Amino acid sequence: MTVEMLHMVDTPAVVVDIQRLQTNVADMAAFAAGAGVALRPHFKTHKMIPILRLQEKAGIKGVTVSKLDEAETVIGAGFTDVLVAYPVVGPRKVARLVQLAKRADLTVAVDTPDAAAQLSTAMATEGLELKVLVEVDSGLKRCGTPPGSPTVDLAEFIHCLPGLRLVGLMTHAGHAYAAGSPDKVRLIGLAEGKQLVDTADQVRAAGLPCPVVSVGSTPTARTAGRVAGVTEIRPGNYVFNDAIQISLGVASLEQCALLVISTVISRPHPDRLVIDAGSKTLALDRGAHGNALIAGYGLLVGYPHLVLARLSEEHGVVEVRGEGPLPAIGERVQVIPNHACPVVNLADRVAVVRGEEVLEWWRVDARGGVR
Amino acid sequence: MTVEMLHMVDTPAVVVDIQRLQTNVADMAAFAAGAGVALRPHFKTHKMIPILRLQEKAGIKGVTVSKLDEAETVIGAGFTDVLVAYPVVGPRKVARLVQLAKRADLTVAVDTPDAAAQLSTAMATEGLELKVLVEVDSGLKRCGTPPGSPTVDLAEFIHCLPGLRLVGLMTHAGHAYAAGSPDKVRLIGLAEGKQLVDTADQVRAAGLPCPVVSVGSTPTARTAGRVAGVTEIRPGNYVFNDAIQISLGVASLEQCALLVISTVISRPHPDRLVIDAGSKTLALDRGAHGNALIAGYGLLVGYPHLVLARLSEEHGVVEVRGEGPLPAIGERVQVIPNHACPVVNLADRVAVVRGEEVLEWWRVDARGGVR
Repeated sequence: MTVEMLHMVDTPAVVVDIQRLQTNVADMAAFAAGAGVALRPHFKTHKMIPILRLQEKAGIKGVTVSKLDEAETVIGAGFTDVLVAYPVVGPRKVARLVQLAKRADLTVAVDTPDAAAQLSTAMATEGLELKVLVEVDSGLKRCGTPPGSPTVDLAEFIHCLPGLRLVGLMTHAGHAYAAGSPDKVRLIGLAEGKQLVDTADQVRAAGLPCPVVSVGSTPTARTAGRVAGVTEIRPGNYVFNDAIQISLGVASLEQCALLVISTVISRPHPDRLVIDAGSKTLALDRGAHGNALIAGYGLLVGYPHLVLARLSEEHGVVEVRGEGPLPAIGERVQVIPNHACPVVNLADRVAVVRGEEVLEWWRVDARGGVR
Repeated sequence: MTVEMLHMVDTPAVVVDIQRLQTNVADMAAFAAGAGVALRPHFKTHKMIPILRLQEKAGIKGVTVSKLDEAETVIGAGFTDVLVAYPVVGPRKVARLVQLAKRADLTVAVDTPDAAAQLSTAMATEGLELKVLVEVDSGLKRCGTPPGSPTVDLAEFIHCLPGLRLVGLMTHAGHAYAAGSPDKVRLIGLAEGKQLVDTADQVRAAGLPCPVVSVGSTPTARTAGRVAGVTEIRPGNYVFNDAIQISLGVASLEQCALLVISTVISRPHPDRLVIDAGSKTLALDRGAHGNALIAGYGLLVGYPHLVLARLSEEHGVVEVRGEGPLPAIGERVQVIPNHACPVVNLADRVAVVRGEEVLEWWRVDARGGVR
């Protein structure tokens, strides 16, 4: 059998460095074990069952997903302990959730009485009991109840509903992505953990059960996960890392396991190159809230003087912003994406490489989950 | 057989309004016929063979594609007159192009001597002749030679190479998307046409053939397409239109044929709703160069006082910026995306609707063309 080498793969291609991936997976599992917290990694980053199996082997409590398509994929692959970290609302989604609850040990995030009431009716009708975490807003201002008494109130409401079993609280400190410096990221992680533990204490003081205190995000996992009283971390991006994690001081360039291989297709001007990776390959993420450390749309490995300044759908426009060698037309470059998660979601499959050798191709199992 | 209704489809869903689509397709075909120019619509917008067949029925000269995956898809479906409006560079892509050139009437854009030389060698070796358009930069500053003598020089170089047949010039005035006002869009369209016609005259004055003078883009098609000497237009987005086209005065809300249906999943604050369409459904396009007329990440139909202010991967955060009714948790909203093209590329399939009825589902045939 011929060995497939990376130079034989056409571009743009999404590539996973298997050694870096395995190191990242092992490191977070070791952190969780050392900190004495459960690891429930987020599937939405990679959406690939082979990577979930590597995570399982390294030691995880269960899986986090952000939508029912992902839940259906992981449960279909035999994973049973699944947290849907997303409010499940509307009759079609609730019906799908009921089907999943018959097959798996499901937990769902809830942040409104409306959602709780819909789930309760559906589960009680089927004689099922669904585990529920109240989603708390730790500062992201997306979903979630405010910490403290509003959370206690919703927890009490859920506790009294048939078909639902209150098991604790969860939060996602996504605002850490807008922190602007590694020190601020750490402070947000500490605050995320302490605030959720405080609210969990208030829930318990109200006589309610609260065994699970679950925090999220790759940037804050290692600080929030060390706060006494936190029981679970849900990082996702750590398997790959990316330019945004580098900008936050969370990862080094050498810890980035997901790369896009692209070809220089033109050099229309001495100060401008064009590569064949655009927004349909790299996505347009610039980091939350205008992260000032992100200069372009991805890092060109080995070319610190080049900035990937603009993306069209299939063109990446690279500006020369300093002295140094330039790749020639036809040459290939490696790009570390700003945000790995949407890049995987744009690809049908990724090449798994060790050095220059393509070991295998992995299908992105749960991508394209738009109906 | 049960008729599928839109309310039975789970969200987020990408929906094509068949009547609006057919009107848009017919209108551009009528414009091209009236202006006496060939219509070669860009496939990258929809990537769906059923839509290309509607365009064919309305009258087109051929198809424009932006990558070889798309070329392979349309040629596989029986379309033979195909322009790859993108520099084809590197041995793997050139080999794929050779295979396609054996099956179809291909034309390729070229903007560097390097690319021309690679193509010439490959085609001459196979005894093939490939039609070539020189890509001219009309102001987008992406690919392309400057208008005037640099373009004439490259045209002459191509004309002398074996295996290549110079057939004319093409440009894409994508900078019209950054124009900021409908008047400026029209001026850019006029300039795009005039400049390319002038350069074509210079090419002919040098004794070179230049039968094709091809301009692009939905915003400029109707102005550049009326400039005497222009022979072909290549709009893509017009089949759907989107919030960016509305902002440029190119389309009305009622001419937008692509919609995303989403469910309100939370209302964590009186001034904030959350919907289940995020960046993995709507993409993050804000219009080129900070189009000031684009206030958020899509228009919520019927709710002018709501702004889709932030997108996470699966969450859309909607801010209340005025007085008016609000959709309840569980209610559905229609979103007109800022940019239709990447939205289609994120979905596996789209629901084709007439009013509330789902007529059929179309697969996005050429999506996921990352290797």
